[in-house]
Amino acid sequence: MTETAPCTIATRHLIAALKMIETVRQDSHIPAIATAILDLDDVPTIRATDLDQELTVILSALCREKMRLAIDPPTLITALGNCPDRTSIRAEGDAALLTSGRVSVRGPTGIDLTDLPEMDGGQPVATFDIPQQTLHAGLRAVSFAISTEETRYYLNGVLLTAVDGNLTLVATDGHRMVRHILDQPYSGPDMIIPAVTVQTLLKLLQRGPSRPAHITVGIIDRNCQRGTPHDRHALTISAPGWILKSKCIDGVYPNWSRLVEKALVETGDTPAIRTTVTQSQASRLPKHNSWRRVTINPDEGTMRLLDDFEREVVAMPLAGTGAEFCVSAHFLRQMVGTIGDVELASGTTDAPLLARPKNPATLALLMPMRKSEPKSRK
Amino acid sequence: MTETAPCTIATRHLIAALKMIETVRQDSHIPAIATAILDLDDVPTIRATDLDQELTVILSALCREKMRLAIDPPTLITALGNCPDRTSIRAEGDAALLTSGRVSVRGPTGIDLTDLPEMDGGQPVATFDIPQQTLHAGLRAVSFAISTEETRYYLNGVLLTAVDGNLTLVATDGHRMVRHILDQPYSGPDMIIPAVTVQTLLKLLQRGPSRPAHITVGIIDRNCQRGTPHDRHALTISAPGWILKSKCIDGVYPNWSRLVEKALVETGDTPAIRTTVTQSQASRLPKHNSWRRVTINPDEGTMRLLDDFEREVVAMPLAGTGAEFCVSAHFLRQMVGTIGDVELASGTTDAPLLARPKNPATLALLMPMRKSEPKSRK
Repeated sequence: MTETAPCTIATRHLIAALKMIETVRQDSHIPAIATAILDLDDVPTIRATDLDQELTVILSALCREKMRLAIDPPTLITALGNCPDRTSIRAEGDAALLTSGRVSVRGPTGIDLTDLPEMDGGQPVATFDIPQQTLHAGLRAVSFAISTEETRYYLNGVLLTAVDGNLTLVATDGHRMVRHILDQPYSGPDMIIPAVTVQTLLKLLQRGPSRPAHITVGIIDRNCQRGTPHDRHALTISAPGWILKSKCIDGVYPNWSRLVEKALVETGDTPAIRTTVTQSQASRLPKHNSWRRVTINPDEGTMRLLDDFEREVVAMPLAGTGAEFCVSAHFLRQMVGTIGDVELASGTTDAPLLARPKNPATLALLMPMRKSEPKSRK
Repeated sequence: MTETAPCTIATRHLIAALKMIETVRQDSHIPAIATAILDLDDVPTIRATDLDQELTVILSALCREKMRLAIDPPTLITALGNCPDRTSIRAEGDAALLTSGRVSVRGPTGIDLTDLPEMDGGQPVATFDIPQQTLHAGLRAVSFAISTEETRYYLNGVLLTAVDGNLTLVATDGHRMVRHILDQPYSGPDMIIPAVTVQTLLKLLQRGPSRPAHITVGIIDRNCQRGTPHDRHALTISAPGWILKSKCIDGVYPNWSRLVEKALVETGDTPAIRTTVTQSQASRLPKHNSWRRVTINPDEGTMRLLDDFEREVVAMPLAGTGAEFCVSAHFLRQMVGTIGDVELASGTTDAPLLARPKNPATLALLMPMRKSEPKSRK
């Protein structure tokens, strides 16, 4: 190529941007979902959507011409990865032609770029800045409890709400609930962030010190649902280098705070049952056979994993006071593995267990399981 | 526990042995497959089988009593992993009780240990020692070409045979074939090692300098198949710390050497087509869309990946001489990724391509794909 390319970009930077795009792009027969859009404008970007969320990655590219081209990220990542040179970008007919060194990638062709959806961020109603690591830690603390059951679709995400004027995240699947209060004032509307968006954010947000993320809550439709007046929301999160827009789940979240208050009252200041489960202990519970129950007897000082015939499989010591209760081995392992050592407390053996980790911002509830018939220890 | 345990073992050593056992044990509702057998005898061992292969791991345990107990490796690995102490082993009723520090694991119970199958290694007919890394390298060089198509079940493994008195491994799926000659005399019978056993050996064999593996070929049934006289074989491979027994596939392997000879004759000393594909080049071909074709034109000096409509997607330079031919992008990527840079050569564009890597012990054949209609390059 003797002429100067209309646009060039450092190959390493292009590959990094494409790998970010892959957190949202899906393999699909629908071109709008399967391909990404390279927008070489005043601010050059790559954009992809799965129709629920849309990610725009900002490129440091040198562009002499404005172009809009469809690209196939996986092919580009494989073909141009580790190419030492800069990549030149040009249009060849309706297809993109990207060349780095002596390797070139063409197409895809036949994508109608005028027809592609662009996500609506809605009318802004709240906006704030938050350290990326704070938001990451909060989402990580609650995301394990998101329900995957589709019939209660409004539980398939994280509730963003406020407690005493502080931004609060909540997730529950009916068997366990976790609430995390962030050190961040918030006075905007409640909304439910879909699980896929939570997963994307957990990949994109920096875990260490970095420039803050900027969040905008938008309203798409006011009072769209008949009967219960509530609004449809959208969320826009931007951080240096990228902008993520997401639809929110259109539904009413359960009254989680009433459950927490009830558990706090029932447990009281001197709970009948109180015990500590450490990460080291929870990690000894099985990953497989995840429906199995754990019997915890603080007075006896034991935690025992039972098999399907109520026989003890694993036993280990546990410090605490109070009568025997049962919880799901999988839920206990997963919760302690995520939020760390917890103190479990409750008023009675049938009441939800309050789980308090070392970080007081996080509070979890764990429903007890039916206790087996009394049996003598072998 | 005040009494002395009948058997103790270093927990770290026990966990390592259990993790080896997991290469063969399967999750199953059949107890003989799902559990492992702890045999505390003169030579204490753990044994597991998937009915096609049987792995015995030798333990350094201190035993005062002889015992035979069923154990559940995944539960033990999770519950006792990272326990600092030694593990004591005793029988409690018909169940095993393993205790390390203050953590104990019981069961499983109700397994009839008298009923468990033990694999027959057959009547020994050949035996030899081979460096573990030599066998590992040979199996790795050929295993990618094993067929996964069950209708030609005799291709679902690696042929162990001899070429000029040297141990030789062969695998093919009809689209590609690879042959690896080992620096090891062999005069025993031909046999087909199942793919699962090959995978187990690739996990168990040391890749670095180590004490050699000892191989015994056994005959289970002579002339068991009607018409074609051939024997049913079994293979026993032992290395320090473990013994693997495996059934062999009961079938007749195709006449692979005739195909190699034919390709060598057709290609000749001065092949019409000759080109080199490097690992760096092959790694730029896509991992996804694996049915796609690569068009190689040595005279033009190009390798081009085509999409489903014969449009060029990726192009890169390639050195060589000869007319254009097509091969599967997936097969080329996988072969070069495994055996390294290859010289591809053939007499005509329709003949199988001889692929010669730097290591002359390995030789591969790659079937060309149908060439597209002649089309002008864009």
